Amino acid sequence: MSNIPKAPIARIMKESGAERISEDAKDELTNYLEEVAANVSTEAKKAAEFAKRKTIKAEDIKLAIKNL
Amino acid sequence: MSNIPKAPIARIMKESGAERISEDAKDELTNYLEEVAANVSTEAKKAAEFAKRKTIKAEDIKLAIKNL
Repeated sequence: MSNIPKAPIARIMKESGAERISEDAKDELTNYLEEVAANVSTEAKKAAEFAKRKTIKAEDIKLAIKNL
Repeated sequence: MSNIPKAPIARIMKESGAERISEDAKDELTNYLEEVAANVSTEAKKAAEFAKRKTIKAEDIKLAIKNL
């Protein structure tokens, strides 16, 4: 999995006060975020199915995050 | 905050089985991931400072994730 581009992640890290960041650190955080995104999506899909919808809505994401 | 592009997030959602996704759902997940990224980065910076380093390394990210 390598979907999320690293540049915006590095930008968020800088905004959070990071001065210097190793490439490995960027990879580590990017991979983690992709994992979280996949986990939330899987749960959100279940929530939508439970509500008999085919479309995943914001409320499904909110519920999935709460139940992580 | 609007750093992470929505397209790769939507791609991960599709890979996780989502058929249809509302724009709000993409926004919701993207915003959440940005929040997580900022929180992890803040903790990782503290970990690097604790180790008297200016460079954030993968091990700082790992520790930050564990302590989330």
